[in-house]
Amino acid sequence: MAGAFKGCQKIRGPQLRNLLEAKDFILLDCDGVLWHGEKAVTGAATVVNSLIRNGKHVVFVTNNCTRPREKYVHKFSRLGFTDVMLEQIFSSSYCSALYLRDVVKISGQVFVMGCEALRSELQEAGVSCVEEAEDPDATIYNCPLAPDVKAVLVGHDDKMTFLKLAKASCYLRDPDCLFLATDIDPWHPLSGGRILPGSGSLTAALEVSSGRKATVIGKPSRFMFECISSQFEGVDPAKCLMIGDRLETDMLFGANCRLDTMLTLTGVSQTKDAEEYRDSELTTNHSFVPDYIVDSIADFLPAFEEQDEQSN
Amino acid sequence: MAGAFKGCQKIRGPQLRNLLEAKDFILLDCDGVLWHGEKAVTGAATVVNSLIRNGKHVVFVTNNCTRPREKYVHKFSRLGFTDVMLEQIFSSSYCSALYLRDVVKISGQVFVMGCEALRSELQEAGVSCVEEAEDPDATIYNCPLAPDVKAVLVGHDDKMTFLKLAKASCYLRDPDCLFLATDIDPWHPLSGGRILPGSGSLTAALEVSSGRKATVIGKPSRFMFECISSQFEGVDPAKCLMIGDRLETDMLFGANCRLDTMLTLTGVSQTKDAEEYRDSELTTNHSFVPDYIVDSIADFLPAFEEQDEQSN
Repeated sequence: MAGAFKGCQKIRGPQLRNLLEAKDFILLDCDGVLWHGEKAVTGAATVVNSLIRNGKHVVFVTNNCTRPREKYVHKFSRLGFTDVMLEQIFSSSYCSALYLRDVVKISGQVFVMGCEALRSELQEAGVSCVEEAEDPDATIYNCPLAPDVKAVLVGHDDKMTFLKLAKASCYLRDPDCLFLATDIDPWHPLSGGRILPGSGSLTAALEVSSGRKATVIGKPSRFMFECISSQFEGVDPAKCLMIGDRLETDMLFGANCRLDTMLTLTGVSQTKDAEEYRDSELTTNHSFVPDYIVDSIADFLPAFEEQDEQSN
Repeated sequence: MAGAFKGCQKIRGPQLRNLLEAKDFILLDCDGVLWHGEKAVTGAATVVNSLIRNGKHVVFVTNNCTRPREKYVHKFSRLGFTDVMLEQIFSSSYCSALYLRDVVKISGQVFVMGCEALRSELQEAGVSCVEEAEDPDATIYNCPLAPDVKAVLVGHDDKMTFLKLAKASCYLRDPDCLFLATDIDPWHPLSGGRILPGSGSLTAALEVSSGRKATVIGKPSRFMFECISSQFEGVDPAKCLMIGDRLETDMLFGANCRLDTMLTLTGVSQTKDAEEYRDSELTTNHSFVPDYIVDSIADFLPAFEEQDEQSN
């Protein structure tokens, strides 16, 4: 990787094996890397199970905040990732709960513009959330507002309404009320060419209506890496590899945390997107460039097969 | 108004009378200038009626898209503005309808993320809107999408839901589908310190989820002035005065259209906000600076009293 064309190295075979040998921690995004919805990427489960059995620390770093970590364990298991444990899963909802409890040591309640899973992740951590009464006649003109809201947390919320947005905007009038976002993913692909607006879309709405900027917990913010470092001993960024499918979140996250980065082409971003960033004259764009590119996480398979043969 | 301190001239008495004499067209914002909700600003109705009786062209330029123009006429009349006619009212919803019908000559349907008044303004102009079925079980995974949507129009929508946002995002995947916003007002003040998220908040959400930028119809875009120019003969920007209460929309609108601008202090923006923009080193901020400032539109009253005395 020299000078002008740093990054985007297509890697496979012995090079890939050497890279893996140099790393202790493998950080993996989930959607678009390991699975699409309920369908595992072919070979992904074998790769993850092999990494774990070969003694690597494998952790999952996901901005998906719609599922409590227990449900992630079930999903991993259901899709054939049989060796994954709760402690390996770092979702933006779990990390948001840690942030509120351990970093800002919140007193008072949190107003959540997000789904039920996000609320239950907070409650599990002992962080109290405003209970929302479902009153179809309530409007921002007449609804009650809780007196002790000390943070507004925005995540993916497929039950988002104008009233929730308006309430959140009102709470944020208080400069002592924190403004957090689980992540700022703009949208997620669905089947049939449809898309799902992401937390970043709702965060943008609230940023405009409140005139404030959110503190982002998920990728590309460094905070999730700090959570990982606090839960495992001896995490050395130089010995970590971040693997993801989205340049603007996964690769930037890796760059922000000084990790080597790898793009898999089974998700949102493609090689030409990465090369455009690489060849851009805007240096800030270079943080989106992966060090390495693989077609799929399944490209790791030969590395293990040879390894397994050698060890037999 | 010399050099470094251009703008923000507090004006009253004879100077104000001279300014009015030099202008043929008085463009007025409504909320925060003429009324707050259902309460007229003291003296505003007398001023407006006097301007009209003194032969000025008075037009109302409002980003409020929640009321059809007929209802505006009723509101004007109810609050004592007895001489106001339909033709004087330019709302962002009316101008959006004109834009779709006359400028882009839309064929196909418009998906509206806005209130009923916006839809009826479009339908009145002969622009067809997608009918939304109210199915509580519909999700973005299973709902039907109309096949011939050629524009998405966002306005103030206090019935906004995640599903509407998701549908709009899907329609905008088609690069031939236009993306319009009635206005980008970020929020509106309510009583008791509450706020109402504005069209700008919803537009931001959709811009992020679609990865596109909206074409804005309302202030500060020039388009509403083009609508006015098309409906009246001989509109000369040099003979127009734009009066409003919000620097970022009303004053910028005036600057964009090369009109003299006047801030009234009965609404959102205050003198110190205007002076901060004036004294800013960022030249783009200078477009937010009003040429003139009055405490209230009622400051015009003495000008007419003297005029009326003179003419008696």
